[in-house]
Amino acid sequence: MSRVFNFSAGPATLAEDVLKQAQEEMVDWNGTGMSVMEMSHRGKDYVSIAEEAEADLRELMNIPANYKVLFLQGGASAQFAAIPMNILGDKKTADYVCTGSWSKKAIADAKKYCEVNVVAQPDAFNTIPDQSEWKLNPDAAYLHICSNETIEGVEFKDLPECGDVPLVADMSSNILSRPIDVTKYGLIYAGTQKNIGPAGMAIVIVREDLIGNAMPITPSVLDYQKQADADSMLNTPPTYTWYMAGLAFKNLKKMGGLEAVAKINDRKAAKLYACIDASDFYATPVEAKYRSVMNVPFTLPSADLDAAFLDGAKKAGLVTLKGHRSVGGMRASIYNAMPEEGVDALIAYMQEFEKANA
Amino acid sequence: MSRVFNFSAGPATLAEDVLKQAQEEMVDWNGTGMSVMEMSHRGKDYVSIAEEAEADLRELMNIPANYKVLFLQGGASAQFAAIPMNILGDKKTADYVCTGSWSKKAIADAKKYCEVNVVAQPDAFNTIPDQSEWKLNPDAAYLHICSNETIEGVEFKDLPECGDVPLVADMSSNILSRPIDVTKYGLIYAGTQKNIGPAGMAIVIVREDLIGNAMPITPSVLDYQKQADADSMLNTPPTYTWYMAGLAFKNLKKMGGLEAVAKINDRKAAKLYACIDASDFYATPVEAKYRSVMNVPFTLPSADLDAAFLDGAKKAGLVTLKGHRSVGGMRASIYNAMPEEGVDALIAYMQEFEKANA
Repeated sequence: MSRVFNFSAGPATLAEDVLKQAQEEMVDWNGTGMSVMEMSHRGKDYVSIAEEAEADLRELMNIPANYKVLFLQGGASAQFAAIPMNILGDKKTADYVCTGSWSKKAIADAKKYCEVNVVAQPDAFNTIPDQSEWKLNPDAAYLHICSNETIEGVEFKDLPECGDVPLVADMSSNILSRPIDVTKYGLIYAGTQKNIGPAGMAIVIVREDLIGNAMPITPSVLDYQKQADADSMLNTPPTYTWYMAGLAFKNLKKMGGLEAVAKINDRKAAKLYACIDASDFYATPVEAKYRSVMNVPFTLPSADLDAAFLDGAKKAGLVTLKGHRSVGGMRASIYNAMPEEGVDALIAYMQEFEKANA
Repeated sequence: MSRVFNFSAGPATLAEDVLKQAQEEMVDWNGTGMSVMEMSHRGKDYVSIAEEAEADLRELMNIPANYKVLFLQGGASAQFAAIPMNILGDKKTADYVCTGSWSKKAIADAKKYCEVNVVAQPDAFNTIPDQSEWKLNPDAAYLHICSNETIEGVEFKDLPECGDVPLVADMSSNILSRPIDVTKYGLIYAGTQKNIGPAGMAIVIVREDLIGNAMPITPSVLDYQKQADADSMLNTPPTYTWYMAGLAFKNLKKMGGLEAVAKINDRKAAKLYACIDASDFYATPVEAKYRSVMNVPFTLPSADLDAAFLDGAKKAGLVTLKGHRSVGGMRASIYNAMPEEGVDALIAYMQEFEKANA
């Protein structure tokens, strides 16, 4: 079987070169006679892998020295609790913009630790309310956004203005998709299993003045200051996922960095949305201005056609296109590791399916 | 470079067959055209991998149906907090036996959530106080032990008697090393990176009547009931580590199950301790009765010889033998995946080094 084009929302496709390197090194990394999986996280070989991954991420995202980069277990979902536990300090409330399913989950966990002020929520999760309508609280400990809602395919295009209130962003599904100005954020976090590598890790990029005042009930492994002091090795980190993330970072550098990656991402998304827009057969529910460059939900004229569409797609080597159960229809996740040929193949199949079924 | 014998305490050596299978399947699992790392955790291929791993673990350990098996992120250290959060119920105190470094860490995190009663602690971490000396509290929510202290090499040989108080055991470094009677425990937990597979996961085996009353401050991902209801997929689980654990379980079954594995483990440990005992050169600080079958700490007559010992060992393909910084000397971790030939090679080297340096 040759490799398929896998449009999974996460865990998601990885670059074939990255997988092949991991395969080659599986039983013996760099002449050490052991797999990366078998290395003590305290040994110099593994420490070099971990440090190089962090250095490459800092270079790719241009992360300033006053930001800590943490590699933690628990996925982004563990951070839903860890963020208020670590960042509230002596504040009692936090602002959240609710733009979809992941915002809702972040809010639900935050409510265990503080008063949550939902500053904006659209009637349907297919747009982002204009910031002029937001009810920001200047005394909030932070303002939380989900910069790209993986399930609904809604993406922030402009940076919110929140004055001195630190901006916290869940970038699980669009981190590293384009250059951003890290200094505009107090904290950025992302699960690794969408736009980076395998599942089992979250990356937290946090301005160092925001940490050090965790609530006493914070589990040690979720205490950002303790993890920062221990270089994310307060306990054994997810060593292999960290290594795989490092291979993905190297691959992005080889592609020319985030400027180059963004151009490809924009081109992939533009042609897929153009295919949908040019057709009366396919439709996408998201307001054009907020369409995600990473996750493209679309529908067929009738849900009765979904099974046939998915079946034919699978035969064409295009898999995991079924939309999230809460949204229905289809969803094509086209992260960094999805080659442009994959998007081209999807478009060709969509046009062929339309012709046969319109 | 050929494979070395890696005595790391964790992450630790994996069976070569397991690594080779992972290598072979890395880019294309079972004709799916994708890596296990790339699979949606909700898809039928991945669900089959996850379910088979659980079924094999249940078979190996003979886990009764009224126990939930959870595959969670955060390592055993996250459970140091999760256990009191989930198991205290309306109780306010928990009993802990303190037998070494890992007991101490478990106690430190538990103190954030309840009153901790340390029922026994030896003067030095080279023995386990006899149970007749323990000060058990019949009103404790649970009694916590670390069944094998990885750093000090101290292992429980008899099951504590604690009446109706549920027994909770951190088995990170000796789970699956021999058959145990799961029904004697309320909760068993273990990080996977010592005696199972790669780092980044903890396995929690919990009697179902003990869960469902988590403290309101429990992060959702650490709520055992929520995770049990979601088959450990409340959020994206560490899919690849779970798959690797499954390969390790298959390998243990192929070896004949835990009865057969225990025989090999006992033989490996017995010959290594015999080598130490037969010598005036090497010594182990642990009381004979409580010597660990998994982690064998030993010292040379002078710490000045340590560097030469480690250097010669490395040249002989015997690596990661340095003892934990808190204990010094050497430590040979000889988990399930360490072949008997590795122990034989270590013994041969130790005898040769003694001859040259005694």
